Amino acid sequence: MDSARRVTIKEVARRAGVSYQTVSKLLNGQVQLAPATEARIFEAVRELNYRPLYSARSLRSQRSRTLGYSWTPTPPDQANQILDTLLQSMLHAAEAEDYHLLCFPHHADATRQLDSYIRLYETGRVDGFILSSVEYDDPRVIHLLGRGVPFVAFGRSSAGLEFPCIDVDGGLGLQMAVQHLLALGHRRIAALAWPEASRVGENRLSGYLRAMREAGIEPRPEWVRRGEGRVAFGAQAAAELLDLPAEIRPSALVALNDPMAIGAVRTALRRGLRVGQDLAVTGFDDTPLAHYLQPSLTSLRQPIWEIGQRLICQMTDMLKGGRPPEPACSLLAPELVVRESTVPGTQGRPEDLIL
Amino acid sequence: MDSARRVTIKEVARRAGVSYQTVSKLLNGQVQLAPATEARIFEAVRELNYRPLYSARSLRSQRSRTLGYSWTPTPPDQANQILDTLLQSMLHAAEAEDYHLLCFPHHADATRQLDSYIRLYETGRVDGFILSSVEYDDPRVIHLLGRGVPFVAFGRSSAGLEFPCIDVDGGLGLQMAVQHLLALGHRRIAALAWPEASRVGENRLSGYLRAMREAGIEPRPEWVRRGEGRVAFGAQAAAELLDLPAEIRPSALVALNDPMAIGAVRTALRRGLRVGQDLAVTGFDDTPLAHYLQPSLTSLRQPIWEIGQRLICQMTDMLKGGRPPEPACSLLAPELVVRESTVPGTQGRPEDLIL
Repeated sequence: MDSARRVTIKEVARRAGVSYQTVSKLLNGQVQLAPATEARIFEAVRELNYRPLYSARSLRSQRSRTLGYSWTPTPPDQANQILDTLLQSMLHAAEAEDYHLLCFPHHADATRQLDSYIRLYETGRVDGFILSSVEYDDPRVIHLLGRGVPFVAFGRSSAGLEFPCIDVDGGLGLQMAVQHLLALGHRRIAALAWPEASRVGENRLSGYLRAMREAGIEPRPEWVRRGEGRVAFGAQAAAELLDLPAEIRPSALVALNDPMAIGAVRTALRRGLRVGQDLAVTGFDDTPLAHYLQPSLTSLRQPIWEIGQRLICQMTDMLKGGRPPEPACSLLAPELVVRESTVPGTQGRPEDLIL
Repeated sequence: MDSARRVTIKEVARRAGVSYQTVSKLLNGQVQLAPATEARIFEAVRELNYRPLYSARSLRSQRSRTLGYSWTPTPPDQANQILDTLLQSMLHAAEAEDYHLLCFPHHADATRQLDSYIRLYETGRVDGFILSSVEYDDPRVIHLLGRGVPFVAFGRSSAGLEFPCIDVDGGLGLQMAVQHLLALGHRRIAALAWPEASRVGENRLSGYLRAMREAGIEPRPEWVRRGEGRVAFGAQAAAELLDLPAEIRPSALVALNDPMAIGAVRTALRRGLRVGQDLAVTGFDDTPLAHYLQPSLTSLRQPIWEIGQRLICQMTDMLKGGRPPEPACSLLAPELVVRESTVPGTQGRPEDLIL
């Protein structure tokens, strides 16, 4: 069967010597026939390499067996360190359940973006969605919940908005980073954070505040710097922190993402400081090149493969109706990967020290 | 219309006071009605927010308006620096043509991977494919060509295998890198290459050989090192090159990708060499963090956004039948981004010097 021409159900019926309705009912599990007849039909299916047309099957079942996914693009000077792993994980998990992923573009305009979601669902192209980069009062969450459209999110939203969700416990991650620095003897620890409107940022920052207070240290207002999570901001914020009077000048800082940490390290190096000694720095996300920076960067790694698997499993379970959708959020712990930016002389991969 | 319940064509017909066959024929452009009747039907469509079911439309048109895409995952210690940009570009271009991208997982087993392609096409889930990471005698190319399945590839295959394709001229890129090094006064220039089985690798390497010979320098066999394109290999190969006798020891090397270049830089730094002076190094792909390495890395940047746009345009043109599929490959030039690893003291972004 090397031709691209599609075999029809009528040809299968002719070869098996039955009506096409009989073939259709058998293949849809709507009828049981004499064993010899069934065997003849299945043999014809195999010989002709018949495959039911997706659109016909979908029209019958009212299911597309397709999930929609769109994501916020990463600025061109940053690596999207999780996209490949997250997509591959979701694609493999979906394939195992006979689902596929339909990807659609991100639009900065929220109304246009929402329209993409609604149109895909209403035209029956997808049975539901996977969301990521979920923010406070996320309009996608509010609209999809309101319309009863099935979805599972990578990330929480505002308190009170409850829906099926998997998230990395960023607060726990920052707590681990701060405890690591405290154990190394640091007491004046600053944080490079995002603006307060960032849901992910506030989750992560809460762990910094908690760990400091648990150690009996009240974080000074000057120690929390907020800005966009880019290298330039990290460099600038670190410069301001290093200009503080000696008695409150931080000897360590935790950045809520790797680009800010990279910026802070650059500032320290430019000032001739020994990174890891005069200033210790941690990042978040464990960008693939964190290991190759000089010095290599201590960072928090998210269990992305597992997240992809869980997102799809939870989604297909919901669609199968096997379990009621749980509007609860599962939190997964990140790993702290210790490198030279906090412990000079640390050797990297494969000896990366994971706490 | 805030309910997720789907509006049927019969409800539209009832509201407009016509038969549902009339609505169907009008919406499919098969009939012209009295202007007042058409206006009434379109008003009902708008009021009820009716959207034709995708699977029904697809079954009628025998077109899924969906393109399949699968890609080779990047090892976890490397950033896939093009995936996000390539996908976003393709998704936007596809949306503009009312197409969507169906992503499916990569399988290392070639037979299993081929089966995914064939099944998606035969069941009518996709109208064709976008291929990337195309190799010599790529089994996907051979099978899809043989079955007459439409596809457009990012990357060429073997000479003689002709199909619609967009590629970056890697040979031109390496030629630019070598000419840059020659202009800086280097004469003993080595290359860190992939094994000969790599189609992309041989394309790129040919530019190194060409530029050297055009400058009257016959590349010595010792100067071409082949191995897997990882940091560890780059570090090892650079060590071997730096151990060559002084009269043939390279003062510069071009790596066919950034990880090998990063490895070479690490070796040079460990030996106390001044990178950019004692040893100049260039990479390929302009990984997002190339700018943040110490020293920052001179590299070749591919026009990924444009490639994504062209891949989809060529594909949808083919499917529309507006133009005959051209089995020719369009070659796009990469840009050389000069940084400290070849010119010490070069300031980086936004002053990155693009040659």
